[in-house]
Amino acid sequence: MNIRQIVHESDTVVGRLFDKVVLALILISLVLMSLGTFHGIDERWKAVLDVSELVIVGLFTLEYALRVWAAPDKWAYIRSFYGIVDLVAFLPFYLSLAAVGIDLRAVRALRLLRVFRIFEVAKYNRAMIRLGKALQYARNEALIFLMATLVLLYIAAMGIHHFEYEAQPEKFESVFHSLWWAVVTLTTVGYGDTYPITAGGRIWTFVILLLGMGIVAVPAGLIASGLTQVLQDERAARDAKAEADGSE
Amino acid sequence: MNIRQIVHESDTVVGRLFDKVVLALILISLVLMSLGTFHGIDERWKAVLDVSELVIVGLFTLEYALRVWAAPDKWAYIRSFYGIVDLVAFLPFYLSLAAVGIDLRAVRALRLLRVFRIFEVAKYNRAMIRLGKALQYARNEALIFLMATLVLLYIAAMGIHHFEYEAQPEKFESVFHSLWWAVVTLTTVGYGDTYPITAGGRIWTFVILLLGMGIVAVPAGLIASGLTQVLQDERAARDAKAEADGSE
Amino acid sequence: MNIRQIVHESDTVVGRLFDKVVLALILISLVLMSLGTFHGIDERWKAVLDVSELVIVGLFTLEYALRVWAAPDKWAYIRSFYGIVDLVAFLPFYLSLAAVGIDLRAVRALRLLRVFRIFEVAKYNRAMIRLGKALQYARNEALIFLMATLVLLYIAAMGIHHFEYEAQPEKFESVFHSLWWAVVTLTTVGYGDTYPITAGGRIWTFVILLLGMGIVAVPAGLIASGLTQVLQDERAARDAKAEADGSE
Amino acid sequence: MNIRQIVHESDTVVGRLFDKVVLALILISLVLMSLGTFHGIDERWKAVLDVSELVIVGLFTLEYALRVWAAPDKWAYIRSFYGIVDLVAFLPFYLSLAAVGIDLRAVRALRLLRVFRIFEVAKYNRAMIRLGKALQYARNEALIFLMATLVLLYIAAMGIHHFEYEAQPEKFESVFHSLWWAVVTLTTVGYGDTYPITAGGRIWTFVILLLGMGIVAVPAGLIASGLTQVLQDERAARDAKAEADGSE
Repeated sequence: MNIRQIVHESDTVVGRLFDKVVLALILISLVLMSLGTFHGIDERWKAVLDVSELVIVGLFTLEYALRVWAAPDKWAYIRSFYGIVDLVAFLPFYLSLAAVGIDLRAVRALRLLRVFRIFEVAKYNRAMIRLGKALQYARNEALIFLMATLVLLYIAAMGIHHFEYEAQPEKFESVFHSLWWAVVTLTTVGYGDTYPITAGGRIWTFVILLLGMGIVAVPAGLIASGLTQVLQDERAARDAKAEADGSE
Repeated sequence: MNIRQIVHESDTVVGRLFDKVVLALILISLVLMSLGTFHGIDERWKAVLDVSELVIVGLFTLEYALRVWAAPDKWAYIRSFYGIVDLVAFLPFYLSLAAVGIDLRAVRALRLLRVFRIFEVAKYNRAMIRLGKALQYARNEALIFLMATLVLLYIAAMGIHHFEYEAQPEKFESVFHSLWWAVVTLTTVGYGDTYPITAGGRIWTFVILLLGMGIVAVPAGLIASGLTQVLQDERAARDAKAEADGSE
Repeated sequence: MNIRQIVHESDTVVGRLFDKVVLALILISLVLMSLGTFHGIDERWKAVLDVSELVIVGLFTLEYALRVWAAPDKWAYIRSFYGIVDLVAFLPFYLSLAAVGIDLRAVRALRLLRVFRIFEVAKYNRAMIRLGKALQYARNEALIFLMATLVLLYIAAMGIHHFEYEAQPEKFESVFHSLWWAVVTLTTVGYGDTYPITAGGRIWTFVILLLGMGIVAVPAGLIASGLTQVLQDERAARDAKAEADGSE
Repeated sequence: MNIRQIVHESDTVVGRLFDKVVLALILISLVLMSLGTFHGIDERWKAVLDVSELVIVGLFTLEYALRVWAAPDKWAYIRSFYGIVDLVAFLPFYLSLAAVGIDLRAVRALRLLRVFRIFEVAKYNRAMIRLGKALQYARNEALIFLMATLVLLYIAAMGIHHFEYEAQPEKFESVFHSLWWAVVTLTTVGYGDTYPITAGGRIWTFVILLLGMGIVAVPAGLIASGLTQVLQDERAARDAKAEADGSE
């Protein structure tokens, strides 16, 4: 068992432990980052957070160095998706030191992408491939529904502006203001900050929702339905293979 | 490469570029139209918008003339869906010039339909045909659910009017007022402008929602599920054909 | 062409016309009934509505008499679902005349059921049978999800009562009050009249919603998915039959 | 017919009656428990509830004793899921008597689990097994969507904090406060207690909802779709077996 197995593979006990430690580190880093957004935080806590950030950045740098060093093809790792994500987790910190003026805290949020290392395990890789197939399956249809959603949003906003502008000029000031209402309504979020009060506007809402119910929820259904189909096909292929092997 | 290929087909580089320019023009026109709905807009911006409108109408007219001129069967193009949509994009402007009294700005919104030119490409045509098949598949069932939704809306409104009228006479004044509550509740939008406050009204809401959850979302599920089935059938047919060709 | 064909069948032109007239009458009756719920209505309109009600009840009585008279098996019609629905549409009116004290207006709403006469046509009958099969398909599973929804609602209410009672004693006074919050939240209606404000209550809401998203929407999905399966089976059976006929 | 058949089986009339009495007792106990949460309740009612609790605990104790006594393998029953649930229904009461200081009322809510005794019947057992298979089917995919939901919630919260903090510092104070908004929005509950008011925050909400609509609803679709597949497979296997039996 060498370092490459520990760092890059999950087949050994130590390798799995390493993965778990890294994941824990990522989660701790995200929690600290979130705590850092409390604006009313006092100085002592701020110092604690700053030191923790230093420690975490140090550990991430060490981990990256280890991974590069242990990779069979160093350059391939550096250019891979995970390689870039690993780099982005600590690079902004050093850039901030070099160029003090620029605020790179927002970039730190990209550390979140490291969470996806959980899915490096083989069974999730297969699941991801199946998911990709399912998305491929009905991609054009999903795009049509997405387009139809956007068009419906615009038509909804045009209509509600027409009906409600006179009754509520500050809330439906323009089509852009009305688009906010359209988004909140067609996704059925319905915050309640803007809603029609005229009879015309309410009938329009009814018509738009009737159309929208049959459009907005379809893409999620396509993904779910397509995925089940892919799983079924896979099993049928496996059964066919087993039968063919048995009849030889 | 002649003008017909550029204007009516998407197989050549210039043809695709032409399509993209037209699409950009449509989107710009929609944005300008939306900006025109800002009521507090000052005079200078209004002038800019008016001039842009003139330019866009001019370009749409030119495009229409080109399309008619380049069409193999001129009359067929003029009577086709896209032909009418293309005409509607600029005709209202000229009609407004002729008859000043009539406000044809609402008709301008029909320009939106031109966005669907995106779907003229072959792969979307196939997707549209599949979508049509999927809708055909379970059309009667979807209509039953639509009917059931309408009946449920009416029953919900009758019931809530019965329970809530005394407690909130201004919000549940009649069945028509209560229908607004029924629409907002059964689609799960829930703005929060009207909601039951009596125990009876709340139990009624619970019963209606329990029924509604199993009715309102079904049509979207039917579309998604039917579409996956159509895709599966198509692939099975393709596989069967490939096998038949192979065994010959 | 005799009266039986007109009244009980939809195969002839006059028969279809009769069906449409009856449907129009039902819809008019429902609209008038709804208008009657306007409490601030003045005397003259009330008189108009009362007279219309008289006319409609008269026409419904006539229609019922015709249907009984023209039915091949009179008693079978009277005891059938549609027979009872047709009777209920006007009987309450005569009962009100006989016993003035009792308010039978609520019963009038049952006229709504007559709308389902639309579905008497053959193609809807087939769709209804398919729908019945689809419901049969996964009935036990759907019942489990319904039970799970009810249990989740109760657990959600118990939990939120525990977390929010001290902060909002008037809104989460007891488990029964909290159940209202649970219904509004798990169906994702979210009126906004009651919502958690403590950290504990909000985390509880998050946990309950995460569970709920995977439970509440499943029955609708089961219906949609089962229906598509039934349609697919039917078509496969039709294809198999066509093939068997061809190979003979 | 001996006691074991009555207590542990549902094949006899008395056995089914016993099950129904126990179920009624559980439901009554839950209603009384809920009534006990009314804080403004007066002394006399409190006494009634306390006595009822005593009676119910006594009956549950008796039932447990009977079940242990009548079980073919006593120890197996005590350690089974239902054995523990049955015990938990009354044990907290006696523990409260022994150690007065500890409040074990919350534990009483576990009585709710006894409701699942309804599903002991054979047909629900089969339905549960099918449900288990369906969950097994697309487990990894569902987990990926759950993870994606959590990541999307976090990204949504980070973004909205960025856009809205200056406009509404008290509502979007930190990422943790913003997470509440993210949960309420992505599940489409939309209470309306927190919503974006800046243009940036609204566009962000739009983007997040567009992504979210295609992620959050997928797990429920996977369960529904997978379950239909399992039912279909079962029927195909049954048909194949029937055919094999017929051709022998």
